[in-house]
Amino acid sequence: MTSQSTINCIITGAGGFVGQALASALLEDPLVSKLTLTDVVEPSSPNRKGQSKVEVRCVKADLTSLETCQTLFTPDLNLIYILHGIMSGQAEANFELGLKVNLDSTRQILDLLRRTNPGVKVIYPSSTAVYGPPATPTTKITEGDTPVPGTSYGAQKHICETLLDDYSRRGFLDGRSLRLPTVTVRPGKPTGAASSFASGIFREPLNGEKAILPVSKDLEVWICSPRTVVKNLILARDIPKEKFPNTRIVNLPGITVTVNEMLEALKAVGGDEALKRVEEQRDEATEKIVLSWPTRFDVSRAKQLGFADDGPLERTLQEYLEDYGAKKQ
Amino acid sequence: MTSQSTINCIITGAGGFVGQALASALLEDPLVSKLTLTDVVEPSSPNRKGQSKVEVRCVKADLTSLETCQTLFTPDLNLIYILHGIMSGQAEANFELGLKVNLDSTRQILDLLRRTNPGVKVIYPSSTAVYGPPATPTTKITEGDTPVPGTSYGAQKHICETLLDDYSRRGFLDGRSLRLPTVTVRPGKPTGAASSFASGIFREPLNGEKAILPVSKDLEVWICSPRTVVKNLILARDIPKEKFPNTRIVNLPGITVTVNEMLEALKAVGGDEALKRVEEQRDEATEKIVLSWPTRFDVSRAKQLGFADDGPLERTLQEYLEDYGAKKQ
Repeated sequence: MTSQSTINCIITGAGGFVGQALASALLEDPLVSKLTLTDVVEPSSPNRKGQSKVEVRCVKADLTSLETCQTLFTPDLNLIYILHGIMSGQAEANFELGLKVNLDSTRQILDLLRRTNPGVKVIYPSSTAVYGPPATPTTKITEGDTPVPGTSYGAQKHICETLLDDYSRRGFLDGRSLRLPTVTVRPGKPTGAASSFASGIFREPLNGEKAILPVSKDLEVWICSPRTVVKNLILARDIPKEKFPNTRIVNLPGITVTVNEMLEALKAVGGDEALKRVEEQRDEATEKIVLSWPTRFDVSRAKQLGFADDGPLERTLQEYLEDYGAKKQ
Repeated sequence: MTSQSTINCIITGAGGFVGQALASALLEDPLVSKLTLTDVVEPSSPNRKGQSKVEVRCVKADLTSLETCQTLFTPDLNLIYILHGIMSGQAEANFELGLKVNLDSTRQILDLLRRTNPGVKVIYPSSTAVYGPPATPTTKITEGDTPVPGTSYGAQKHICETLLDDYSRRGFLDGRSLRLPTVTVRPGKPTGAASSFASGIFREPLNGEKAILPVSKDLEVWICSPRTVVKNLILARDIPKEKFPNTRIVNLPGITVTVNEMLEALKAVGGDEALKRVEEQRDEATEKIVLSWPTRFDVSRAKQLGFADDGPLERTLQEYLEDYGAKKQ
């Protein structure tokens, strides 16, 4: 076993919820020997469930600083997860900050890596926010459809995908850009993402608190559970690069649901009591961003590459209660 | 007339052939009052044909320097043409240079302009090199097809388009990104473009010199004449921004021809004598780049916006002789 433990991995944005869930999973992975977790606030080291012997290091770091990146991205790393970023709503409200973090700091890391760790595997979660609204709402989007981002967040993500694709084509890095659906149910507090409500309307009511619904109940969203996303982030590492002939970009699996269907699932799991805690309070800015994202995808490419399917929604809610429910928080 | 002469324009890369042809046209434009031409080598000021009263300034400048850009891009400018760049073949051979010039210097200019000249009109010639090879060679590409660049040049162009689109969506700038076909016939010397042969096999034989054909005669190319390109670069200025609802990106008109058809046109205009001066000498690196570009386009969007059609090829050759033939050079 020890001789196989050769993965020395870093996760940026590791204080975030996806970062923490990914770190938890990697701690149990016999292939992993070292794990560096970094974020603007020192991230916690997830609890170890089993006999994990992974060496974990948690580092507070500002990745917009070149010096900091030079210290962190050492040549012994062989697996990079770039999870840090300013989320969609905040990047729209604070353009300069989004540009600096989502574009410049990612670019800086890619440029550093291609010099110090040539050919290193870089897994970059992108977002379906790279797409603008589809021509017709029922169109199923594939990787063959042009991203016309309706937000700065989407534009910044698409630029990084394009860079990572070119660096991978040239053999500078071995990138994989995974366009994540909206991840729900996230634990913790609301985030700067315009899609934050998609977790809030489950999480708060299930925790006995009120939740604000800022969009129409007829609105559709394209979502994925945390467990499926983490599974796919790890699968991405193990798919041979030869399977990505022209581009490293993949739209990950998810499910399309209306807000009404989300509320029905909430009721099924949490009862009428939970449902009553959701209060409608439309917010135009949020709705405008969410409406700019397509919600129906044909994920044949992801399936062909071996990525895992998601759903159903009620199972996701049960998983949320298992992983993050009242007892766990 | 004087009261209407309100355009204060800068052209970067103005020493290049398209820049010079565009400057010539703008010199005759009654709306233009001032014209700054800049390039890494001091560009010439084109001869004035008519009664042009345009004030012309020619400036040698390295646009990778922030200080230089700050001096050049003054708040009184109200029309920006970003024509400078490292061409496809050279950007593939010298990655760092291409990245620095095609991406970083363009980004620097856009960021400077959005602060000092908010809302200024920026016309950015992009390229159909943003596209990789189409799924099938007969597919007609539209703006709805995903760019999957097969070259670093194409990736860098696509990143700048994406930035300019986002800056335009936010109202920081008023951009138009025009994806130019291969421009032929270019006067002067061969360039660093992989498509350089598409001018060379006309220009050299018509000037009594030998030309190298580095690709198969069956290969197709998507081309446009200099006169049409310049006409469209000026039309782009005059199309109201409201006509670009989601994106400022347009595939400009061109014509699809095989190398064989190009050689036939050469023979029709220059006779057997000219044709015999073309020597086949396949170059794999060039052919690989050229084959990565699609050659058939559906330009409905450009036509709807009012852009001009191109062709036929023999007329283009006659225009070349009129504009740049032996007597003129």
